[in-house]
Amino acid sequence: MARKAAIIGGGVIGGGWAARFLLNGWDVGVFDPDPQAERKIAEVLANARAALPALSDVPMPPEGKLTFHGTIGEAVEGAEYVQESVSERIELKHKVYAQLQQSNPGVLIGSSTSGFKASDLQKSAVSPENIIVAHPFNPVYLLPLSEVSGSPANPPAIVEKTVQIMKDIGMFPLVIRHEIDAFLGNRFLEAVWREALWMLKDGIATTEEIDEAIRMGFGLRWGQMGLFETYRIAGGEAGMKHFMAQFGPALKWPWSKLMDVPEFNDELVDLVAGQSDAQSGMYGIRELERIRDQNLVGFLRALKERNWGAGKVLREHDERRAAAFHATLDTGPKAVPLVMAQMQVLPGWIDYNGHMTESRYLFACSETIDNFLRLIGAGMDYVAAGHSFYTAETHIRHLGEAKLGDRLTGTIQILSADEKRFRSFVRILRGEDCVATVEQLCLHVDMKVGKTVPAAPEVWGKLKAIAEAHAGLPLPEGAGRAVGQKKE
Amino acid sequence: MARKAAIIGGGVIGGGWAARFLLNGWDVGVFDPDPQAERKIAEVLANARAALPALSDVPMPPEGKLTFHGTIGEAVEGAEYVQESVSERIELKHKVYAQLQQSNPGVLIGSSTSGFKASDLQKSAVSPENIIVAHPFNPVYLLPLSEVSGSPANPPAIVEKTVQIMKDIGMFPLVIRHEIDAFLGNRFLEAVWREALWMLKDGIATTEEIDEAIRMGFGLRWGQMGLFETYRIAGGEAGMKHFMAQFGPALKWPWSKLMDVPEFNDELVDLVAGQSDAQSGMYGIRELERIRDQNLVGFLRALKERNWGAGKVLREHDERRAAAFHATLDTGPKAVPLVMAQMQVLPGWIDYNGHMTESRYLFACSETIDNFLRLIGAGMDYVAAGHSFYTAETHIRHLGEAKLGDRLTGTIQILSADEKRFRSFVRILRGEDCVATVEQLCLHVDMKVGKTVPAAPEVWGKLKAIAEAHAGLPLPEGAGRAVGQKKE
Repeated sequence: MARKAAIIGGGVIGGGWAARFLLNGWDVGVFDPDPQAERKIAEVLANARAALPALSDVPMPPEGKLTFHGTIGEAVEGAEYVQESVSERIELKHKVYAQLQQSNPGVLIGSSTSGFKASDLQKSAVSPENIIVAHPFNPVYLLPLSEVSGSPANPPAIVEKTVQIMKDIGMFPLVIRHEIDAFLGNRFLEAVWREALWMLKDGIATTEEIDEAIRMGFGLRWGQMGLFETYRIAGGEAGMKHFMAQFGPALKWPWSKLMDVPEFNDELVDLVAGQSDAQSGMYGIRELERIRDQNLVGFLRALKERNWGAGKVLREHDERRAAAFHATLDTGPKAVPLVMAQMQVLPGWIDYNGHMTESRYLFACSETIDNFLRLIGAGMDYVAAGHSFYTAETHIRHLGEAKLGDRLTGTIQILSADEKRFRSFVRILRGEDCVATVEQLCLHVDMKVGKTVPAAPEVWGKLKAIAEAHAGLPLPEGAGRAVGQKKE
Repeated sequence: MARKAAIIGGGVIGGGWAARFLLNGWDVGVFDPDPQAERKIAEVLANARAALPALSDVPMPPEGKLTFHGTIGEAVEGAEYVQESVSERIELKHKVYAQLQQSNPGVLIGSSTSGFKASDLQKSAVSPENIIVAHPFNPVYLLPLSEVSGSPANPPAIVEKTVQIMKDIGMFPLVIRHEIDAFLGNRFLEAVWREALWMLKDGIATTEEIDEAIRMGFGLRWGQMGLFETYRIAGGEAGMKHFMAQFGPALKWPWSKLMDVPEFNDELVDLVAGQSDAQSGMYGIRELERIRDQNLVGFLRALKERNWGAGKVLREHDERRAAAFHATLDTGPKAVPLVMAQMQVLPGWIDYNGHMTESRYLFACSETIDNFLRLIGAGMDYVAAGHSFYTAETHIRHLGEAKLGDRLTGTIQILSADEKRFRSFVRILRGEDCVATVEQLCLHVDMKVGKTVPAAPEVWGKLKAIAEAHAGLPLPEGAGRAVGQKKE
């Protein structure tokens, strides 16, 4: 029985939330009076489907059910959590909360607001204790940060419940310890935004020059360490105190125009919009979104490979989902090949014929097998303890050609298994289309003595459960052919 | 005859500049009265050698010569460019410039200052027109940004010469159109820094929470698009004007404390330093530097694969260096295998035995060959025009096991070549130690008719020059063995 979230208010933010819940297996009920809501959410969901699975190294749960409703009451029926992303009008939000709490008393309500504090949102509510701020950053389906900000009216249990739900959909909940306007992130963004508008207004720099000043320099630092850890390094061996002593006095220098606010008029708007068109007008918004998402996937995968920052969040999320997957196994999984890897063919993957280079097919298979081994508990720790599965034989069939940008899925079917070995059949799929199959025989070895031995009971137990679930599957076409003869 | 730069003032910044020049083939003369200067620069250089080459897909030029000098006069002798990174005391900088211009009249002087404008630096100089600001961001050897800021005293030719030198060492020179204090980047950093100090002082958040608020959210966005391109997307189909209308009013909200400056006293310093220790104290500074550098290499490679932002800068730099390499070929290269790829074994590359997974050896070879093909002009464009080199046979020998974190070098030696084919011998090296060799026969084919045909004259010309240079090399041990029989 899938958990259900209600999304009140669609658009880019509401749609991003919907995508996170759906792709993490939650059912989602949407209420948004905008007649375009279904189209808009479908577009955000398409972007999310193309990006979020590429961050996962364990099977994604079956996608939840998405429904649209004509009333708030229907949308929130059976929901255990509500994400409210309506426009920033306090009276509107109060009206929405009243209807939500009337239809589903006791439901937890998180707001995407960036302009109001929890105590503002809670005013005049029947159950103020169930209303809290969960403020995300766009794109919601990729960026982990969710600023969780409550008021004294929220008991610790409500804050904790919100934190757990955010973690369940792979986010990084940051609990703000004191109620302040704009929370943390937007206070920094506002500071930079003001300064940037002054530079434009004064003709110091263009929107493009300002963007370059950020993304060619400190922006790269901030994606992996923030402000203070970066400066700690700048302080060198002498440390943070030394850095403060160096940089501290700068506070007194009359550099920025922060004391002042530029007049916000049509002239300024036209200046910014015009320069932005000159800078980015050659790309459509959807195109810019795809470029941004691919870059973010690249950053996040790089951090995941290094188990650092946002990459650590991804690994922890994988571990939770692997556990959830085993729970489903105990109750008997549907007999289908397991989706173990989601990849995209990047420019670095293709050969000079424009096709995915030979080694990448084997690489895609290794990714699939490695994730499978992690799944059955034969990961790093197991190997560190002295046992592992070695590949004895491999048979590759090239059935198609993957090209730049193709999204590939690696599935595994266990053909046979005992305590000492398993025979696997990996399919590398582009959509429905199978571009390669890799049949392998893997032996379980004691690495110290270099001999084939039975796997540890807990590993064999997980492998056995999957092998039994797959026993009912037909033998794949192409399986069982002489293994070990590779094509040239 | 290598070009020469003088580095006045070592330390983290001066050392970073020295590394950039050296690794890009410039000779470097250093003056720094600090008795620790040699050790400090050696440490920065070690970091840079471990990181910068991993961004290059063409042969690195031979590293330049590093010399230390007891006087400014000796350091600047024969230099065409000076990077001044002494501490931020204007009278000291004036003294340094006087000595530089006395010893080497007409030398171009770039300053790393973040606190002074070019016109401040130029005061009382013999040749003010040759003094300009070239302001980098730490780590200088990885982050591309160099803010080039001149005064009316600098003729356009001087600005242009500075721009060209920055490009020559792989940086992204951003010319600031008007002279302002702190240029662009640091004005934003100061705005965020002030706001962050207030949050700490008021107990709103800790250094760690502030860092998470940045790196889990907008920090990731800013590494690939800056402020305005990101907001353009947030505006959605309605565009930038719509976004401004949404966010504009926020300028009037009394969110941040920007109007005010926190008192900078020991109490504040201790608060920040103490929280920073709690957050990052478990890592040494050198360790944090290595973590940061590996993360940045990951980000930069991700952007390079997508040819976006800083990744575009890297690709353009590769193209310039490839051209420079061909120039050396015409004058006859030294007969050595060509270093064509620098890689590091990442967690995602190793199998569950803790060794580099089989497919990655072939991958490392492909990277080496692909870069070689790009080098001889048989890259994407050539393939798009209908011709390519296909691998006919491959023979792999596994001689050692690469492990997590190992830095690998891929070299190629051409054993024989004619207009229709070449036989190559790729070595995958860990330091001096060869972990694998891959011998391949590649055929030049017309992709439309699917037949072996002679390569285009310009491609054959480059291939021929390298093959002739390598003809003098001894046949590698292990070459010429039956090709086509793969090990299992």
